[in-house]
Amino acid sequence: MLRVPADDHLAVTIRVLSALGAPERPAREQAAMLLEGDLRGHASHGIRRLPVLAGRIRNGVCAPGAEPELRWSTSSVLVVDGHTGLGPPVAHRAVDALLERVAETGIAVAAIRRAGHLGMLAPYVERLAAAGLCGVATTTSEALVHPWGAAPAMLGTNPIAAAVPTGGEPVVLDMATGQISRGKVLDHAQRGAPLPDGAAVDAEGRPTTDATAALDGAISPVGGPKGYALSLALELLVASLTGTALGRDVRGTLDTTDPVTKGDLLIAFDPAAFGGGTALTPFLDELRGLAPAPGSSGVQIPGDRARATRAANLADGVPVDPGTWAEVTAL
Amino acid sequence: MLRVPADDHLAVTIRVLSALGAPERPAREQAAMLLEGDLRGHASHGIRRLPVLAGRIRNGVCAPGAEPELRWSTSSVLVVDGHTGLGPPVAHRAVDALLERVAETGIAVAAIRRAGHLGMLAPYVERLAAAGLCGVATTTSEALVHPWGAAPAMLGTNPIAAAVPTGGEPVVLDMATGQISRGKVLDHAQRGAPLPDGAAVDAEGRPTTDATAALDGAISPVGGPKGYALSLALELLVASLTGTALGRDVRGTLDTTDPVTKGDLLIAFDPAAFGGGTALTPFLDELRGLAPAPGSSGVQIPGDRARATRAANLADGVPVDPGTWAEVTAL
Repeated sequence: MLRVPADDHLAVTIRVLSALGAPERPAREQAAMLLEGDLRGHASHGIRRLPVLAGRIRNGVCAPGAEPELRWSTSSVLVVDGHTGLGPPVAHRAVDALLERVAETGIAVAAIRRAGHLGMLAPYVERLAAAGLCGVATTTSEALVHPWGAAPAMLGTNPIAAAVPTGGEPVVLDMATGQISRGKVLDHAQRGAPLPDGAAVDAEGRPTTDATAALDGAISPVGGPKGYALSLALELLVASLTGTALGRDVRGTLDTTDPVTKGDLLIAFDPAAFGGGTALTPFLDELRGLAPAPGSSGVQIPGDRARATRAANLADGVPVDPGTWAEVTAL
Repeated sequence: MLRVPADDHLAVTIRVLSALGAPERPAREQAAMLLEGDLRGHASHGIRRLPVLAGRIRNGVCAPGAEPELRWSTSSVLVVDGHTGLGPPVAHRAVDALLERVAETGIAVAAIRRAGHLGMLAPYVERLAAAGLCGVATTTSEALVHPWGAAPAMLGTNPIAAAVPTGGEPVVLDMATGQISRGKVLDHAQRGAPLPDGAAVDAEGRPTTDATAALDGAISPVGGPKGYALSLALELLVASLTGTALGRDVRGTLDTTDPVTKGDLLIAFDPAAFGGGTALTPFLDELRGLAPAPGSSGVQIPGDRARATRAANLADGVPVDPGTWAEVTAL
């Protein structure tokens, strides 16, 4: 991996997007999210996505200068039409609005349609947590995961993120409901490396560790039938509230040609309105201090590792695949 | 298993609770929830719990006639103090209030503390779905699940339920974030039957299929590290919003002596406020119609099987373990 200074990483994205007509702020917010992906070690959400974004803008299915339309349909429900703009600026405007509103309403939700790929969800719920709020985010994505009991990819990797403030660093969940990312399957196929058991099925729906066979098949849901059920429930919830697509009709984050048809939900909860006030840190410290199980390195609190990886990569340079870096700098 | 007429099942619970001072409505609502557990094939949430409930009332840690206190702290946040009453009546009053409010606010949430065990969560979100709403429910529970990477039981089986209306029958998720229920581990230990791989660890944190060893150990989170992270996030979210306990401090649904310290969250979303309107049924029918994967019986839509089991058991009689029936009728 190359080690790229964070400023150079940002500058490349901003320059490419600006040349394609993106105004300064959306370009900067999109660049920051691609940087976050690479900083946290999730290259699939990093600058590797820039060529797809550029292609989408060139093909007219992403309007990087579009102004999102935000409308409070009730005191607590924000309906957002991204007008095919880049995802991060749309989601950040939604978070801005939630932050402003939730002190009054205690809970507020943004339902987003026609925004580009948001990138990792963690940074959005982290913004809420930094303001002392609990945040939950979920989003639909292209069908890559098979339903439990059948072969074809029919569900997104439908991630769910949550952040809970603790007084110190927040606890931050950000998990896909697929066993493995499409990027990792591709990577394993290129290297001829086997997949973990249970990560995927082949085109006939048989479990396989052959990454090439998995490319013709589908990713398995995490935790088998329960992960499938959770993923399906999230997909239906998002689609029915945001008025967006389902299953194989979800498009526009991996391709360069199709209008975006996925949806996103962001929910903010203000603990002050709930009168809660349970101290979380003693429990978290107890978990961190548990003796590791045999063969384990001990208990991780969600968010800790991402913060550590991020800090190390900020110091040492952002890891970027050389081929990816050559491609984006050529752009 | 005995096959008990549903009316007899209800009558036994109502008679026991009435004799212990429960007013008619709470007794009836509690009885209905124990019946739901057995009707849907989840004996761990069925009438098997009645002796624990009776013990809690006798010991003064459950007040079956308590009136729950419901307070809208904002337009959309309902803070509920169950005053140690039975769980189902408290949760039903919260659902009543959400149903009334959410047409105006689009989203509304109830944060419940000091209510008894709610029973299965599905029936509450089904009430929301029957009114055309999406519902999400989650609750904390006694520490039975180990965090990923360590041995001791430190997390609840923290279930999450969700219902999404479809025009026809709703899709209903109701899953614990533990691989298996404590009841099943007990049952396997009594029969000397092995547990499924990955379901539990022994006291040292080593994966085990020996149910007796698992009783000294802990249940594993579903999906390994991801299920652990999801369970922890849910537990922190519930505790911080409801002001209830964490980890091993969560008490009062399995014992007969401790004040209840778990919490519950119920969220209602009114799709009408979101302007969604995606038709879900064609996608669900497509999933149902997929060719089964090798060795599988095909795709299940969450909620379908519970409805079928429920209908069959209503017709054939409610399955109840003979020992349990003897115990509750003796009460």
